[in-house]
Amino acid sequence: MTVNILFAAHADRWAQYETPLTEALDATGLGYDLRTDFAPDEVDYIVYAPNSAVQDFTPYKRLKAVMNLWAGVEGVVQNPTLTVPLTRMVDKEGLTQGMVEWVTGHVLRHHLEMDRHIVNPGHVWDHAPPPLSKDRPVTILGFGALGQACAAALLPLGFPVTGWSRSQKSMPGVTALSGADGLHAALGKAQIVVLLLPATPMTENTLNAQTLAMMPRGAVIINPGRGPLIDDTALLTALDSGQIDHATLDVFRVEPLPAEDPYWSHPKVTVTPHIASETRPDSASRVIAENIRRNEAGKGLLHLVDRSAGY
Amino acid sequence: MTVNILFAAHADRWAQYETPLTEALDATGLGYDLRTDFAPDEVDYIVYAPNSAVQDFTPYKRLKAVMNLWAGVEGVVQNPTLTVPLTRMVDKEGLTQGMVEWVTGHVLRHHLEMDRHIVNPGHVWDHAPPPLSKDRPVTILGFGALGQACAAALLPLGFPVTGWSRSQKSMPGVTALSGADGLHAALGKAQIVVLLLPATPMTENTLNAQTLAMMPRGAVIINPGRGPLIDDTALLTALDSGQIDHATLDVFRVEPLPAEDPYWSHPKVTVTPHIASETRPDSASRVIAENIRRNEAGKGLLHLVDRSAGY
Repeated sequence: MTVNILFAAHADRWAQYETPLTEALDATGLGYDLRTDFAPDEVDYIVYAPNSAVQDFTPYKRLKAVMNLWAGVEGVVQNPTLTVPLTRMVDKEGLTQGMVEWVTGHVLRHHLEMDRHIVNPGHVWDHAPPPLSKDRPVTILGFGALGQACAAALLPLGFPVTGWSRSQKSMPGVTALSGADGLHAALGKAQIVVLLLPATPMTENTLNAQTLAMMPRGAVIINPGRGPLIDDTALLTALDSGQIDHATLDVFRVEPLPAEDPYWSHPKVTVTPHIASETRPDSASRVIAENIRRNEAGKGLLHLVDRSAGY
Repeated sequence: MTVNILFAAHADRWAQYETPLTEALDATGLGYDLRTDFAPDEVDYIVYAPNSAVQDFTPYKRLKAVMNLWAGVEGVVQNPTLTVPLTRMVDKEGLTQGMVEWVTGHVLRHHLEMDRHIVNPGHVWDHAPPPLSKDRPVTILGFGALGQACAAALLPLGFPVTGWSRSQKSMPGVTALSGADGLHAALGKAQIVVLLLPATPMTENTLNAQTLAMMPRGAVIINPGRGPLIDDTALLTALDSGQIDHATLDVFRVEPLPAEDPYWSHPKVTVTPHIASETRPDSASRVIAENIRRNEAGKGLLHLVDRSAGY
């Protein structure tokens, strides 16, 4: 029996994925056919990116699952034509690892106040070593796979880490908080805040005028999560007032960030072009192939999206 | 019996050290007297910085040891009047920890090519995620306490780490090399080179025209070790030719770095003002007090300097 797998992503992705996905599927021993075109009623699985041409799943009568190539599913989770299971990408070797590197790097950059030396036109020699990391509390909002992986990298470097999430989590060495009271406590002691929440109607504008005011004056924001987590007007106001010292932003409501966006020229904002992390074809292909193999063997799918929670 | 301890460092250090050193010595239970002035023939131990007024140790007839406050001892090790044991500072909680934070931060900064986004006057949105750390080999020259601590922080982040030292060392997960052939191999594959060698006549100009040419084109140099490890003229030539892509330098032959030094204005050089690490009074005081306690109990001194090797 042949499993028919439709690859439905932005057109330029096929060149990146054809070889690694073929190799990963070959390694499973499944009989399969992998293509970018099928008659819809022949398709068993769709390897999917939300910006693909496939937006109406109705004709896919025998579809068993949609396997999202991205960690974020906000572009597909509310699609009313999607009635089969949806998985999100949990790619530890690629996507998670890249996020850990980016977050750890930018936490250390702000901790060490590197920008004072990288941009130093006055050639000022100011011998003032930074505090040690044990005196630089970091709070991670969103404490799922990505948030916990970042915490696991920051703890051995000495940072006190607080993780906040919708549902209470726990992790050795981390102060884990949840709920509205927990958010107040998590923000109240954070010198550096990292946003790794999913984009859902519940998480929109998690950082707003009220919550930005909960942070100690001079705190730093790092957002590699999703653009809508921040009320942009409130953040710009907090930067101008000095309540927030700096924001390093990798994601935005509109991407690429439009030329006229005030973030580009704000002296207290660093824009990075949505590079904090990305699904890597080699490792992501192995995750997808393994998940199809599991499902075909009756073992169920990993990384299923909770449609009601939105992630 | 009272142990007389002379504190001999730059004048402004006494204010930082008096309280923590007193507390640490109190905790040992020793009978002691800690002061910045004694008749020389009354002194048992000198807590020492090489820039102190004490340069002639001859009058210190009953001196048992000199305990250097700094990790680097090049300012005292060749003093011909010093005939008693010399210890260097190994301050894991302070000096080592600070070095680990600074080195890890700047390795990640260069790995992630952060400067392209921190300084981006053209507002260029260039969506090109960096490679993963597994594809970014790091070589540490000098693989003692500081080098090994930095390797231990870089390994879990995914970097392939090579450590090179005068005498062969070993550490799980690290490619450990030594000797002249080892240096060629260590530099030949390094995309990022971290200098943590001691300053000795043997290590002067470890990076010179010949060794810089051993690195892959476009490698990055990070020097938190000592200024004389680098032939500055050769480095500037290698930066201008593109052989070396960037140098982040924390230490220099003359400090503060003179205003006319070409490093200040070179576009491929980042100058940091000798902040990579510093002895921290609290933790350093505990290390010194414990070492005096050990010696008074007949257990011998830790962190002894090998006078012939120079560190």
